[in-house]
Order: sequence, then structure tokens, then C-alpha cells
Amino acid sequence: MAGGDDLKLIGAWPSPFVTRVKLALSFNGLSFENVEEDISNKSELLLSSNPVHKKVPVLLHKGKPICESVVIVQYIDEAFAGTGPSLLSSDPHERAVARFWAAYIDDKLVASWMQSFRGKTEEEKSEGTKQMFAAVETLEGALRECSKGEEYFGGESVGLVDVSLGSLLSWLKATEVMSGAKIFDPVKTPLLAAWVERFGELDGAKTALPDVDRVVEFAKMRQAQAAAAAAASEN
Amino acid sequence: MAGGDDLKLIGAWPSPFVTRVKLALSFNGLSFENVEEDISNKSELLLSSNPVHKKVPVLLHKGKPICESVVIVQYIDEAFAGTGPSLLSSDPHERAVARFWAAYIDDKLVASWMQSFRGKTEEEKSEGTKQMFAAVETLEGALRECSKGEEYFGGESVGLVDVSLGSLLSWLKATEVMSGAKIFDPVKTPLLAAWVERFGELDGAKTALPDVDRVVEFAKMRQAQAAAAAAASEN
Repeated sequence: MAGGDDLKLIGAWPSPFVTRVKLALSFNGLSFENVEEDISNKSELLLSSNPVHKKVPVLLHKGKPICESVVIVQYIDEAFAGTGPSLLSSDPHERAVARFWAAYIDDKLVASWMQSFRGKTEEEKSEGTKQMFAAVETLEGALRECSKGEEYFGGESVGLVDVSLGSLLSWLKATEVMSGAKIFDPVKTPLLAAWVERFGELDGAKTALPDVDRVVEFAKMRQAQAAAAAAASEN
Repeated sequence: MAGGDDLKLIGAWPSPFVTRVKLALSFNGLSFENVEEDISNKSELLLSSNPVHKKVPVLLHKGKPICESVVIVQYIDEAFAGTGPSLLSSDPHERAVARFWAAYIDDKLVASWMQSFRGKTEEEKSEGTKQMFAAVETLEGALRECSKGEEYFGGESVGLVDVSLGSLLSWLKATEVMSGAKIFDPVKTPLLAAWVERFGELDGAKTALPDVDRVVEFAKMRQAQAAAAAAASEN
């Protein structure tokens, strides 16, 4: 593995955005030092490395910080070109299409998924769930368009869109466990359902994705904390 | 000018995101066919070219659509490399820093600016204004960091961040005219205030940026329409 002492990832294991960076590092065969952050008591290293957003993930490469997950993934692809299969095509139009869908995943899928459980009212949560399913169906079309009959959004090998969507898998599976609803339905979205299975079997994914049961446990703990805080504020 | 028949831009002149693409085309010396869209009655060309978001701008290159302004700007830089000064550095870290600030401009400055006049309550609008000024101050620091003593965010020549921020200038100046407040204050943000002057003098900017008076007129018409719609809904 290349990288070694030169790469340090400030992260927090439950964050899908941190997982995104771990996937890119893993697919590129890059080793790194993992610095687990206490989000409730942020370190001086995190605050000084990302003074604008004060958020994980931050990748430190030879001491220089890079912030924002999709920016970091592209950085890894460019700074370590040649160490693994490229995550972005050499064709400018295919690169643009990949960047478009990577943005869609964050702007639409992540936003609606978060609204499905963080919405202020039941109506807002229900609207979030509806939009989440609509986004998944749109992504079924994106996979058909991008893969051109191959196995991944990136074609024969994983690309930026695979990494962007793949980083959410443990959380989306945990949401399925907790809600009982099937997000990647083999009947409604057969290509995506098969992609989920295929992606999860990749060595890079097995290394980077957090265990689903651990995510469920973490999510339940957070729900209990939020419920306790809400009850306390009513007294 | 290169480009010619191969490039068609589906846009609408008041949109700062359309202006962003015009700036990138202009700085690259690329000619294009401008297709002015009626946003209240969207064309079949727009709907079929951007079926996901149904929004301008869309750049058609040899008939192939590219959507989302920052994606399009990077596409122009990559597909027409060599026709003009590159908008992104060849250094991976500088590219990452530019992508970080381009995202910041949309996520923080554009969002807070829009909230400053579209907020549902006066309190929300006032919070938007406050956050907008905070974002401008943060961008003063970004300019100091990115320019390294040169004239632009991109260094000696304009780059992705200059194009991203520059595309908002007519609207921000129109906001100054209408509100009386100084957004780029020469005392609080001297580097940015000088950058605004310098950027506006560039031939590419003069070609692409809409006239401030015309934007003011457009904004006043929109305000009047919104007020009329609100009054009608109360009857």
C-alpha cells in the first residue's frame, strides 16, 4: 500500500461522508492513519484543519488539509493518479455526468433521507421518505445511463458515483432494518438492487463500510438521546 | 473564437448561474449560440436536456447536454483545455482548495443572500443578511489564501472561484442599490472590494455580466409580482 505516514484522515466512524473518503483510499490501495474524532468535543487538529466548516472528514496529506468529502475523493483521484483504477473517466463528458450525479446524491438523496427522520413534523418526515424513494428511482435511471451495460456507475470499475452512493449503504441498510421498508427494491429498482449486492462484495467496500448492526445500535442510541432531550425540554 | 456551431447555451439572462457559464465561455474565448429560455413556459429542449432538474443553464456541446453551473464550468475547462488560460491549477491541492471555495460560495453566500430577501419572516431575512455578511468576510480570507499576493483567487489569472463569485456580481451590486447597504466594504473587506473592481474591468466579465440597472429593474418587477400574488392570496 502506498501513502503510509503521509496520509492522515480525521474522521468519525458513523459518518457516511468519512466512509466516502475511506472508500476512495481503499479502492486506490492507499494506507492512512485514522484519527477518530470526538464530535461532541472537537479537537484542536480538526478546528485548525477545517476552520470554515469545523467538520469531518478532513484528509491531511503531508500536513496539508483537504476538506469536504467529494472534494477529497477527487483530490485522491488526482494526487495519486496511477496507484489504483481512476475514479473519474478521462473523457470530459463522462466526468461531467459523474460530477452531476455525485451532486445529485448529496442534494437529493442524502437531503431527503435526513428529512425522513429529522423532519420537524410527521408530515415533513413523510414527505422526506417520499422524496427519498423518488431519488432512488431516478438513480436507477442514472445507473442505466452511466454503466452502459457494465457493472458500475463508473462502467467496468467503480467511479466517483459508486463511491458517493456506496458510502451511504450501511446507513440505508440500517434504515431498512429500523423502518422495515425496502429502499433498494429488486422489483422497482432491479439494477440498483443488484449493484448494492455487487458493491458490498468488493474488498474495498468491506474494508471501508461500517457494520450495519453497529450503525443500527448507534442510530437507536441517538434516537433515545434525542427523545430524552425533547422530554427534558418539555419539563 | 473557437466553439461556434458546436456550443449552444440554454439560459435566461437574469440567472447568475447562467452568467457563470457565460463567464467561463468568455474567458476561454469560446463563441456559442445563446438560447434564451422562457422560465415560465419551459421549452421541450430544456426539459429533454435536463430532465432531472429542469433548470437552466444547460450547455449543449455537439448536441450532448451538460447541466449544473459548476459542473459545466469544469467541463469547459477540461474539454477546451488549451483554448484559454486554465480555470483550474494543475496542482491537485490548489484544485481541491478551488473546489472547496466554489462549493462554499453556493452553499453559504448564495443561500444566505437568497434568504435575505426570500425568508418567510423578517427575522429569517435578517438572519440571512447577517450570514451573508459573515460569508463575505470569510471570502476575504479565502482571497488572501488563494491569491498568494496575486490579483485573483486563481492567482495571476482568473480561476474557478473567480468565475463562481464573479457570476454573482451584478446581483450583489443590484442588492446594494436596492438596500443601500455596502456588501463589499473597502474598509472591512479591502481585498475583495479591490477584486470586485478589477474583475468587472475584464473584457470577459464585461461581455458576460448583465447590466446592474437591468437587474435592478428585473428584481423590482419580481418584487411587485410577489407582492401582488401575496395580496391576491389574502383576498
